[in-house]
Amino acid sequence: MSNQRNIYLNMKTLKEARQILFEGFSRFQPLLKETISVPDAVGRVLAEPVTAVISSPNFHLSAMDGIAVTAATTFGASETRPKELVMDTDAFYVNTGHVMPENTDAVIMIEHVNDMGRGRVEIEAPAFPWQNVRKVGEDIVATELLFPHNHAITPYCVGALLSGGVFFVPVRKKPNVLVIPTGSELVDWRETSLEDLKPGQVLETNSFVLGKLIESCGGAFVRHEMLTDDPGIIKQAIFDAVNSDFDMVLTVGGSSAGSEDYTRNVIDDLGRVLVHGVTIMPGKPVIIGTIKEKPIFGIPGYPVSAIIVFEQFVGPLLSLMLGQPEKQRPTANVEPTKKIASKLGVEEFLRVKLGAVGNRIVATPLPRAAGCITTLTEADGIIRVPNNITAS
Amino acid sequence: MSNQRNIYLNMKTLKEARQILFEGFSRFQPLLKETISVPDAVGRVLAEPVTAVISSPNFHLSAMDGIAVTAATTFGASETRPKELVMDTDAFYVNTGHVMPENTDAVIMIEHVNDMGRGRVEIEAPAFPWQNVRKVGEDIVATELLFPHNHAITPYCVGALLSGGVFFVPVRKKPNVLVIPTGSELVDWRETSLEDLKPGQVLETNSFVLGKLIESCGGAFVRHEMLTDDPGIIKQAIFDAVNSDFDMVLTVGGSSAGSEDYTRNVIDDLGRVLVHGVTIMPGKPVIIGTIKEKPIFGIPGYPVSAIIVFEQFVGPLLSLMLGQPEKQRPTANVEPTKKIASKLGVEEFLRVKLGAVGNRIVATPLPRAAGCITTLTEADGIIRVPNNITAS
Repeated sequence: MSNQRNIYLNMKTLKEARQILFEGFSRFQPLLKETISVPDAVGRVLAEPVTAVISSPNFHLSAMDGIAVTAATTFGASETRPKELVMDTDAFYVNTGHVMPENTDAVIMIEHVNDMGRGRVEIEAPAFPWQNVRKVGEDIVATELLFPHNHAITPYCVGALLSGGVFFVPVRKKPNVLVIPTGSELVDWRETSLEDLKPGQVLETNSFVLGKLIESCGGAFVRHEMLTDDPGIIKQAIFDAVNSDFDMVLTVGGSSAGSEDYTRNVIDDLGRVLVHGVTIMPGKPVIIGTIKEKPIFGIPGYPVSAIIVFEQFVGPLLSLMLGQPEKQRPTANVEPTKKIASKLGVEEFLRVKLGAVGNRIVATPLPRAAGCITTLTEADGIIRVPNNITAS
Repeated sequence: MSNQRNIYLNMKTLKEARQILFEGFSRFQPLLKETISVPDAVGRVLAEPVTAVISSPNFHLSAMDGIAVTAATTFGASETRPKELVMDTDAFYVNTGHVMPENTDAVIMIEHVNDMGRGRVEIEAPAFPWQNVRKVGEDIVATELLFPHNHAITPYCVGALLSGGVFFVPVRKKPNVLVIPTGSELVDWRETSLEDLKPGQVLETNSFVLGKLIESCGGAFVRHEMLTDDPGIIKQAIFDAVNSDFDMVLTVGGSSAGSEDYTRNVIDDLGRVLVHGVTIMPGKPVIIGTIKEKPIFGIPGYPVSAIIVFEQFVGPLLSLMLGQPEKQRPTANVEPTKKIASKLGVEEFLRVKLGAVGNRIVATPLPRAAGCITTLTEADGIIRVPNNITAS
């Protein structure tokens, strides 16, 4: 077995690496757009501003059950001098949502109308113009801006768009991300029976986790078949990916500096390595590179490392491509239940369980192992230990 | 036009109405379960506890690139008295993730190994047992509980489940909700051209908004064709729905007390009205009923009313059916930019724009009109004005 090793050149801090990433891809070719129906657009991002085609309401509508009248004809009505109105001439029964009959401009609530029989009613107070009427454009005026460029469509937006006569909208295509799992030890759960697992064979899980994270950030995910640790094969797969319609490529595994870690050299051959190695734990052996102006990530193979790297680099870049702000986790002030050892020069993402003790929130660290996915599934939060403190 | 009207009997406060709702449906027939692949289960809820089938790792693995040794054979090594090991007999090259060779129990990092040539290496420090080894079950032990009943599956969970040898999981079927838009004035945007809209015709939007909200709460949504304001037709549609495999029915429109509001009587005929009228604004004319032990909601037709009613009643009931906690919006302390008029006995959901002024967050009320969907799409938050204060 060979013992040849790479080395990390110029490890970056998290802050430096993120700056390199965002500057490197700030002049992205914008994603193409596609036009889809408004209900299908929930969760998508507008590629252009959208303006209303019709007003809502687009006719004056009654806002109450009652009688529609011309306000001027009611002036002077009072308890002592009620006014009599002739139905279907001076006044018209309307229900909530009905179009106002021609030449009427006010609605008197049915509770305030005395039916006198023989097609006549009596009112004891005047109506003021436009009372209980939903005027044209009360909600939306035709031609007004409904939502700007880069607006993320919510279920509420569906109501405003359809009401404004907009049935199809231009949205950004989803960033199309290829995930390439690498590692000769990997097996696909869809092609395996557990009894047949041989020593050293490992179920490939990262690509499925990353795929779901990509989807949660608004991207589309394609899983490449698993590749063995062969630099030629990996190089060919990355070459094919950047020359097809993928917007981003993630390789998983082989991003470190070991004798079988080929990703860095492959990216160097095909394009440029921007970052190799970031002073974070877990997640140190990340590679950020670019080939044909497309972003390529070398994602570490340990499951927690893969997720931290995704959340610090890949997810934020997907948000940037979609014109969205970076997703932020909610934060809270917590007290650790024990001293937390920390390493100068390393920013740590420590998974913790939270508990309430009186008014305080206490945080109990979970094991640090980057290989243990359960330290994330069991965690209630993550303490970020900065790289400029040391303690034990 | 007829002038016959219902009345609200016994309006309930929001708190009372929610109590009636949750008590009325607390002994729900649990939703059926179905078995789906783990990646497809993201966003779904486990119908049973799930335990690991295999351990992860399921063999002792090297956690470093280096040499695997039997710790005992290294004892006594020091800088002054280094130990020489014969490769492939006393020691074996391993990379991170490799299975430990038989009878080895420790890994010495490659950086601490001096290659002496001729198949021999030298070490200057002893290894302690299990150093740099990922032992069987470090992450997951076969048979351990991975996730309990009612656990909501996240992307992280996909990693833990697949690693534990669980490829398919039993999840609750999605609550199947039928939405029936009613109103003779309604037209379907998919069958309309805007130029042909006649006075009084209104684009039906609520069912599409409600459908997306249902999906966001984990439910499945079917839209019934629009019905005219005909009590016989509406009754037949509800009867058919509760006698098929829908778990819940929403009618939209016609839930008020006007002369063309038939829903209440239809539910009374087929089952039981639990609540008609809640002292909230918007959203007062809501109906909560039950037919064949299934929940039926009469949703008001104003778009903001429909959404408030969904979020106060329908969404929380969907969460209850799925064993999930009610979704909570984040809260903040804000200062209104002007006095807010309020009505004793009515709990108001006032849509507001938020802004930062120094360290304070100020809230500017948007128009109150329940017919204006843009008061929700433009809102940054909602101020809930309790029903026991009055101010102007």
